[in-house]
Amino acid sequence: MAPSAKKGVLERLDAGEIVIGDGGFVFALEKRGYVKAGPWTPEAAAEHPEAVRQLHREFLRAGANVMQTFTFYASDDKLENRGNKLTFTGAQINEAACDLAREVANEGDGLVAGGVSQTPSYLSCKSEIDVKAIFKKQLDVFIKKNVDFLIAEYFEHVEEAEWAVQVLKETGKPVAASLCIGPQGDLHGVSPGECAVRLVKAGAQIVGINCHFDPMTCVKTVKMMKDGVEKAGLKAHYMVQPLAYHTPDCGCQGFIDLPEFPFALEPRILSRWDMHKYAREAYNAGIRFIGGCCGFEPYHIRAVAEELAPERGFLPAASEKHGNWGAGLEMHTKPWVRARARRDYWENLKPASGRPLCPSMSAPDSWGVTKGHTELMQQKEATTQDQLKVLFDKSKSH
Amino acid sequence: MAPSAKKGVLERLDAGEIVIGDGGFVFALEKRGYVKAGPWTPEAAAEHPEAVRQLHREFLRAGANVMQTFTFYASDDKLENRGNKLTFTGAQINEAACDLAREVANEGDGLVAGGVSQTPSYLSCKSEIDVKAIFKKQLDVFIKKNVDFLIAEYFEHVEEAEWAVQVLKETGKPVAASLCIGPQGDLHGVSPGECAVRLVKAGAQIVGINCHFDPMTCVKTVKMMKDGVEKAGLKAHYMVQPLAYHTPDCGCQGFIDLPEFPFALEPRILSRWDMHKYAREAYNAGIRFIGGCCGFEPYHIRAVAEELAPERGFLPAASEKHGNWGAGLEMHTKPWVRARARRDYWENLKPASGRPLCPSMSAPDSWGVTKGHTELMQQKEATTQDQLKVLFDKSKSH
Amino acid sequence: MAPSAKKGVLERLDAGEIVIGDGGFVFALEKRGYVKAGPWTPEAAAEHPEAVRQLHREFLRAGANVMQTFTFYASDDKLENRGNKLTFTGAQINEAACDLAREVANEGDGLVAGGVSQTPSYLSCKSEIDVKAIFKKQLDVFIKKNVDFLIAEYFEHVEEAEWAVQVLKETGKPVAASLCIGPQGDLHGVSPGECAVRLVKAGAQIVGINCHFDPMTCVKTVKMMKDGVEKAGLKAHYMVQPLAYHTPDCGCQGFIDLPEFPFALEPRILSRWDMHKYAREAYNAGIRFIGGCCGFEPYHIRAVAEELAPERGFLPAASEKHGNWGAGLEMHTKPWVRARARRDYWENLKPASGRPLCPSMSAPDSWGVTKGHTELMQQKEATTQDQLKVLFDKSKSH
Amino acid sequence: MAPSAKKGVLERLDAGEIVIGDGGFVFALEKRGYVKAGPWTPEAAAEHPEAVRQLHREFLRAGANVMQTFTFYASDDKLENRGNKLTFTGAQINEAACDLAREVANEGDGLVAGGVSQTPSYLSCKSEIDVKAIFKKQLDVFIKKNVDFLIAEYFEHVEEAEWAVQVLKETGKPVAASLCIGPQGDLHGVSPGECAVRLVKAGAQIVGINCHFDPMTCVKTVKMMKDGVEKAGLKAHYMVQPLAYHTPDCGCQGFIDLPEFPFALEPRILSRWDMHKYAREAYNAGIRFIGGCCGFEPYHIRAVAEELAPERGFLPAASEKHGNWGAGLEMHTKPWVRARARRDYWENLKPASGRPLCPSMSAPDSWGVTKGHTELMQQKEATTQDQLKVLFDKSKSH
Repeated sequence: MAPSAKKGVLERLDAGEIVIGDGGFVFALEKRGYVKAGPWTPEAAAEHPEAVRQLHREFLRAGANVMQTFTFYASDDKLENRGNKLTFTGAQINEAACDLAREVANEGDGLVAGGVSQTPSYLSCKSEIDVKAIFKKQLDVFIKKNVDFLIAEYFEHVEEAEWAVQVLKETGKPVAASLCIGPQGDLHGVSPGECAVRLVKAGAQIVGINCHFDPMTCVKTVKMMKDGVEKAGLKAHYMVQPLAYHTPDCGCQGFIDLPEFPFALEPRILSRWDMHKYAREAYNAGIRFIGGCCGFEPYHIRAVAEELAPERGFLPAASEKHGNWGAGLEMHTKPWVRARARRDYWENLKPASGRPLCPSMSAPDSWGVTKGHTELMQQKEATTQDQLKVLFDKSKSH
Repeated sequence: MAPSAKKGVLERLDAGEIVIGDGGFVFALEKRGYVKAGPWTPEAAAEHPEAVRQLHREFLRAGANVMQTFTFYASDDKLENRGNKLTFTGAQINEAACDLAREVANEGDGLVAGGVSQTPSYLSCKSEIDVKAIFKKQLDVFIKKNVDFLIAEYFEHVEEAEWAVQVLKETGKPVAASLCIGPQGDLHGVSPGECAVRLVKAGAQIVGINCHFDPMTCVKTVKMMKDGVEKAGLKAHYMVQPLAYHTPDCGCQGFIDLPEFPFALEPRILSRWDMHKYAREAYNAGIRFIGGCCGFEPYHIRAVAEELAPERGFLPAASEKHGNWGAGLEMHTKPWVRARARRDYWENLKPASGRPLCPSMSAPDSWGVTKGHTELMQQKEATTQDQLKVLFDKSKSH
Repeated sequence: MAPSAKKGVLERLDAGEIVIGDGGFVFALEKRGYVKAGPWTPEAAAEHPEAVRQLHREFLRAGANVMQTFTFYASDDKLENRGNKLTFTGAQINEAACDLAREVANEGDGLVAGGVSQTPSYLSCKSEIDVKAIFKKQLDVFIKKNVDFLIAEYFEHVEEAEWAVQVLKETGKPVAASLCIGPQGDLHGVSPGECAVRLVKAGAQIVGINCHFDPMTCVKTVKMMKDGVEKAGLKAHYMVQPLAYHTPDCGCQGFIDLPEFPFALEPRILSRWDMHKYAREAYNAGIRFIGGCCGFEPYHIRAVAEELAPERGFLPAASEKHGNWGAGLEMHTKPWVRARARRDYWENLKPASGRPLCPSMSAPDSWGVTKGHTELMQQKEATTQDQLKVLFDKSKSH
Repeated sequence: MAPSAKKGVLERLDAGEIVIGDGGFVFALEKRGYVKAGPWTPEAAAEHPEAVRQLHREFLRAGANVMQTFTFYASDDKLENRGNKLTFTGAQINEAACDLAREVANEGDGLVAGGVSQTPSYLSCKSEIDVKAIFKKQLDVFIKKNVDFLIAEYFEHVEEAEWAVQVLKETGKPVAASLCIGPQGDLHGVSPGECAVRLVKAGAQIVGINCHFDPMTCVKTVKMMKDGVEKAGLKAHYMVQPLAYHTPDCGCQGFIDLPEFPFALEPRILSRWDMHKYAREAYNAGIRFIGGCCGFEPYHIRAVAEELAPERGFLPAASEKHGNWGAGLEMHTKPWVRARARRDYWENLKPASGRPLCPSMSAPDSWGVTKGHTELMQQKEATTQDQLKVLFDKSKSH
């Protein structure tokens, strides 16, 4: 694979350009039938490439500048984990994912970002050397495939993220580091500001937040990171790739704790108008790498790109199928729907759920276990019925 | 195109088999960036065939037996309508849609259904002859491409649906007829029972409901149709292809009147567990052609197929990426999420919206205009700013 | 007790005057600590007269023209019923209630209405003679105390209400009859229109609805009664005394079936602004006897009187402590609260519940038992633990 | 008036006894028609003594040990304020209030507490001397009438509360001090812990929180005060008298900022079961003076007394009209309501609002003005229409 002749991610950010990320592949492909919730592993990159390619294309068309390799949880320890019998090796999956991302990136102004994420090995208290070896294996593929930059994302513990950054840094490629934490900090209580400082010191040029919380909460947390970095006299670029779900009711562990996770989150999905507000808020906070994570569909990224079109100077390709702020409705059959073809209508609407027997917020599960607790030791075998029974009983007593 | 060697739709239904429909293309492709809300026309069949093909495949994989040609609103009068400048002729779009549906149908146990829907000509009070000529033009393509059966769907007025059935009937192919009405009947007040009798008398072998209302409301309306048909001493098969949105607050015109239509319906999206209930309810009501319309994504159809797996005797292909009733969560990293890997958890959960500033129901717009009112005369030109201003003002006073 | 020299209720209604009723005593006094929920008997009239007198006064001051004797469920069969050991005889309670109502009525423009309501005897399938004898006993007190008119209220079965009217009619005093039913009709399925006709034919000069449903639903039901009476070529006056609770989710049996009844209805309490809308709607429907039932506090009746002040020509006494449509807020300490001193603020406000973990509607209990079912046979002894266990188990399985 | 022979408040608290406060008079009497919202002044003590006496009795009967004199906002500067033309002097109102509280206290185990609250003079930036003189005038009456102890309550600024405590302290009577602040501290940002320390140092033997926030929030804030006092090596007793409204959506200024204040708070009213949880939580937090403020009706205080009956050793008088945890329903007519006669039913119920068009939370007004801002200068004259117009416009732009 030839290196990209395009401007790199750091050149863009240094020049003050906006870099738009893509959306969350595991959730989108789960709904399309190619990813299994629970293991959340990305074997579809090798198994059903046409589905992964199509999703990349939709995000590119929606305005994304970054094609993240579909390699979430594609570390060997995770792929082997918990009874998930795969017919592909980790290397095969990672290679296929790189090829798909590159193929679509070449169709437009896209960069390929190779991604690593937190490992079962860390949660199971393996050593720094063991955990770093896991990252190194994925990285070998990314280097062979010559990705444009690297992202260490979805880390709940800053310590593991630092280890990842240290490994990625050795490649000489730009490194972004993104934690899945909220304003309360990482799962061991390290504040967002301190997390950011540690990641920058470890070598990350871009730091930020992805997943676990809704857009406004993530932007707020990145602001805390920025404050920390600036107070420490350091410099960085900032990124944010939040959920496309409303999570005002979450605790420190985010949407994983919500009783609706992962199969009943529908009423929380953000509308495109929520995304306009998010994009503007993120931009105003000084964040320039703005994308999405679980729940983001192509139309959510398009809304981000449309909100930031004045700054970027152009609309994404998919906007040919969208009027700004609902203007396409001018051509609707019914006159009262045409009456909705205006910004102030959609900007001020408070959408109903059509679920009068449901509450508006949830009481999250709060088991409060994290790395170091026996409940979190990961195993290769599927959970047994006896193990499940203990969990079911514990859950009912809540 | 060779005729399908598969069992036809009527053979299946006569044998008591379940026929699973696909989901709603215009809404799904709008979110993926290929359809424009407002005109809702299907030019993507010719313009972006890879996107349409992929969606067909996902529905096939999810368990659908019917590939509906992506020809909604593909009548020439609609395609020309309201400033929607297209680079493809109606014939090109209809042909491309037939080819895509056939290609994917051939990859599995799928039948191709050619679909026509209500026309601007009828709303604008054109004559029966004019309206029938519109249907005839689409039909010529369906015959050339040798679709397996025909569906006249999304009609608000039973009179226009009868005209469509009469035209379709001449082909000798099986004809299904599906209205987008609720328990209150069609927009001129004809009851569901009487509508069904008129459609059967016009020649439809399958009658039912699609779009505009949520699954339970649609099943209820089909039951009323069935009662009417049986009381009249007639016979028919029944179909239902509802919205994937909760609409307890709708009036006779369904979700078009909801203030959230079409860009803020997210909080209303049904979960897969809602779909289990729907599929069972539809089956228990004696309906055997069970599918979806706007809002249905592949995972919704998969849930229908999973609920009805005991009756059908097999699971859909996409279930390899899904454990029954959340069983895939047995392999989740967090123990409290593994504790959700059971039916009674998901079946009884009342999902929160995460939107504490939003209501649970809406007061629908109720302009109460329908065929015969001047507000509904359709025009080819885009709505002018002056025309819009009148609508905006009328809307604000509500 | 001397007869009232005031204009009688029929004279007022014949003259087109508005007669404002009072609110619900059992619910208001339960909250003040003088009535026990469950038995709901009115022994406080004899036991704690100062509390009953004060509540009468508050309603008079709020604008009520009718002081209903606090004799709900004061029939001997009810007072003896279900383990409710009383130290007062039925006659003592009824007499004390008459005296209190008269005392306060004399302080202003109030009329005294003696009230009877449905009996355990009827529910237990006693004969017409037995049930009528029960009414007769209460009536003897009302005649002795010379009340101004009579109300047969809170009947779920029109048959029992007819019997009551027939007994009351013999006194020669004006008779009002009020059912606690909704648009679906009485518990044996008799429609509101037919119920009204039967009550008028039995001799009632005023017919209507009280309790069990929210104001708008009650007004709607009275309209159906009015339609029935008019279609039958009869004449009557109309009354409405609804709940002060929102009940959009009720079945035919009203708020009794709501899971919140009777101890968690707080989030459903109507605001004074809801009452303005109710009073106007009732007036527009041609109803002239407009009051309240369970949940109505004095400020709710005041709101009714304030809304109808233009028609009545005066404000109630308690309005000296209330500015119209919130005008009293002009004197609030905080400027942003002064900014709420206007009608359009309160009229359009959608009040939040502050309960984000609660739904907006409930699924009512629907045991569907009524007169004639063994579950409804009334007994004098308290329910035993064994009897309760059966009920608890039945309830949990819902 | 003879001094009370009963055990004083400090003796009780020193002995570890629970002291139950009463509920909120201005809100309860506003609903009964005797207090005007806006000015919120207590002239009813002199004008309608029977209404005030009855409310005192209901709280006594519900289990209250403290009869607070109905002297909220009865300082001369407030009584003269904002166009509120009164026919009674401040001294007359304060004296009448003392007499009523004493009369009812003598009917049971009640103590009389004389209360002062924040003044318009402080908000208008008058001097310490001026403000203290205001308190002194009310205090003269309390001393003449020989109240049992004193409460300085409803202060938003700890500085003014300290001044009040200093004045009250000179009498030699026990002094309680209660702020209307939340966890964010007073309106000038002083933390609850520091506020408490300052009040104890000023001489208060009992410190705590009343009004402005819901029970759980108030308990949480008192805990912060207790922490502060203990860390400072000081000693105090603690009191809490919260709202009976749910306020999860409030900012630092509490329910005043909610758009529903004060005329549409109904959906937020706590049920009796909410009060059980509150009483237990307050007790567990080490608070021993437990009462209520705005929104508390007698049945709310009864619920507090019933929850704490095991600790106190007795039930309140009004429990004769109440079965524990709904047990009175054993005698209800309908069997499915008898099925609700149990603790686990009511404890776990999530009550619906019956308001499907309303949200569950509100966005509070946040004008952010406090002492020192010109908008808060208080005036004697009624707000003019011109002044109101400015406020209305400012409000609409929010």
